[in-house]
Amino acid sequence: MTTTGKQLFTTLEADGKLTVASEDVTFPDPTGNEVLVKMEAAPINPSDLAILVGAADMENASYTPGKFVATVPEPFSAGSKARHGIKLPAGNEGAGTVVAAGDSDAAKALVGQRVSCVPGNAYSQYCIANAAMCLPLGDHSAEEGASAFVNPMTALGFVETAKRDGQDAILHTVGASNLGQMLTLICKEDSIGLVNIVRKSEQADLLGKLGSTHVVNSSDEDFMQRLGAAIDDTGAFYGFDPIGGGKSVDTAFKAMEQVAVSRMTEYSRYGSNQPKRMFIYGRLDTGPTILSPSYGFGWTLSGWLLTPFLQSAGGETVGRMRQRVRDNLTTIFASSYKRRVNLDEMLTKEAVTDYRKMKTGEKYLVTPWS
Amino acid sequence: MTTTGKQLFTTLEADGKLTVASEDVTFPDPTGNEVLVKMEAAPINPSDLAILVGAADMENASYTPGKFVATVPEPFSAGSKARHGIKLPAGNEGAGTVVAAGDSDAAKALVGQRVSCVPGNAYSQYCIANAAMCLPLGDHSAEEGASAFVNPMTALGFVETAKRDGQDAILHTVGASNLGQMLTLICKEDSIGLVNIVRKSEQADLLGKLGSTHVVNSSDEDFMQRLGAAIDDTGAFYGFDPIGGGKSVDTAFKAMEQVAVSRMTEYSRYGSNQPKRMFIYGRLDTGPTILSPSYGFGWTLSGWLLTPFLQSAGGETVGRMRQRVRDNLTTIFASSYKRRVNLDEMLTKEAVTDYRKMKTGEKYLVTPWS
Repeated sequence: MTTTGKQLFTTLEADGKLTVASEDVTFPDPTGNEVLVKMEAAPINPSDLAILVGAADMENASYTPGKFVATVPEPFSAGSKARHGIKLPAGNEGAGTVVAAGDSDAAKALVGQRVSCVPGNAYSQYCIANAAMCLPLGDHSAEEGASAFVNPMTALGFVETAKRDGQDAILHTVGASNLGQMLTLICKEDSIGLVNIVRKSEQADLLGKLGSTHVVNSSDEDFMQRLGAAIDDTGAFYGFDPIGGGKSVDTAFKAMEQVAVSRMTEYSRYGSNQPKRMFIYGRLDTGPTILSPSYGFGWTLSGWLLTPFLQSAGGETVGRMRQRVRDNLTTIFASSYKRRVNLDEMLTKEAVTDYRKMKTGEKYLVTPWS
Repeated sequence: MTTTGKQLFTTLEADGKLTVASEDVTFPDPTGNEVLVKMEAAPINPSDLAILVGAADMENASYTPGKFVATVPEPFSAGSKARHGIKLPAGNEGAGTVVAAGDSDAAKALVGQRVSCVPGNAYSQYCIANAAMCLPLGDHSAEEGASAFVNPMTALGFVETAKRDGQDAILHTVGASNLGQMLTLICKEDSIGLVNIVRKSEQADLLGKLGSTHVVNSSDEDFMQRLGAAIDDTGAFYGFDPIGGGKSVDTAFKAMEQVAVSRMTEYSRYGSNQPKRMFIYGRLDTGPTILSPSYGFGWTLSGWLLTPFLQSAGGETVGRMRQRVRDNLTTIFASSYKRRVNLDEMLTKEAVTDYRKMKTGEKYLVTPWS
């Protein structure tokens, strides 16, 4: 069987030239535990944007049908040295229908079914995917299942990470994001305290409607005071941040320490003994992370990434998480999209300029056959 | 019994006015497990300087015998809000002779002995100390025992922390410090790999003479390359940094990641899976810590402080560490001092200006009876 179709590739040269284009390719036959999926829908997540656009100057890029060529400025190009000259696929996740399978029983059982999958080249008309990572969607549409992996498993992963560390409350610095809304509903269901930081009153309203009890608006004048009160109330000395650059984590640590110090009966030059823990799980701001020396030494900051977390969590936990996603695909884990684009349309100036903003509630969905 | 003597106090007012002065005080009689120590020698460690001088403008301070008054600029004064208006003692550690004891057998057994102790008000002619934290010095001089706690226990604490985390190699960003030299000798004895970063060739020579096998000079043009080679050779993806501010930790993470990426067979947009761990245990640079987004998500940075570490390590480990310090007081754990000052002399412009520089090998020793 020969399967041909279009697939998107992204290549960064050593001189900073970034070429992203859809090309006609021939897909291999699936072997072993692999399946061949005819892709119907794939979201453009922030985690996809780094490799797709990164820090490229998209304003002055050249756009032709099915292709753009842009320049990635320094130091960002040099910072991606390891990918220089390598033609990479893009698109972490998506959904489609299994049209062929390798020899394994698990793979063969999926033929004809609609599944969500994590192929790593989801911006493509066909993908080879690992059957073990496919989630059968039953009667759900491809659009409903397109984002069944990255955001749902990340939000669930935060709660699993917190529980493993003996925490019963979480702080999330971008509360109203798609992922933040999922986290809000999960925490409500699991009786985990949650402090949501937002930037706008509409976002606060949105989370309030989802049942979030501690929403703090960073645009408010008394933001730090309110943040402290929410931390004091929930005990959320443990949080997750998708911004990365700037002072997002710093602000969280400061507020946590203020609460901890207010609970101390005696002054210590070293700050409080309250352990404070933050995780950076994204880089919405690609600038450096700034940590001011104002919360003593009782803090820990880590990067957090889904794949290593899943590897460390073990099969039983991951299986339970996946089942929960499937059971709540149109409720807790529902995603919404601003616009649908095919593989050519996603490479136009208008589209790129819009989706790279990563605005809350304005996600794009790639529909490669439209 | 009424014991009177001089003690140093430091007070920061809300308006940033910092007053440090020696005063005549009456010391309480020791009770329970306490001992009264006639102090003979106490070092001025970087960890003491924060409370003693901090970010104060010492150039324009007013100096009178036994006292200085200086201004702590913003945002540093506001950052120390918790101590505003509180008169604090200073001096973590020192050595002297036990002249009185509380009722406990452990306390009474120390009467007449010279001990090193950790009273928190070591810049004083007398101190109340906890007998359990006193280390009997036998025939050692007070000067030999004055620094028996902070640096030795911190250096040993690094090795214990690393071992607990399953590490067999450490990176230290200020290799030639007094503590760094101790760490070098401990690692040699314990067969722990050690990468020492220094800034000058004399420091590299010094560490080489102590048997350090991996010394990297940050002033060398090919510093990053050499640092990478040393990490590759030792496997030191785990390190300690007393600088805190600036890019000291960032540089270490970058070098670790370069080594990890060079070992990868396939490009990953998320960087390597190699866990990278750094600890900040001091603030020689009081500026913000800068972390660039250039080593993926497989890293963790924590503050590290001796007291919480000792609390978590447990009595058996701490006892073993203390015994090792005592057994090696004039070898591994020897300290040297540039100058001896009494409680008045340490508050002169000349002295403060010199010791606040915290130069390697130029430590001051406070001798309150001289």
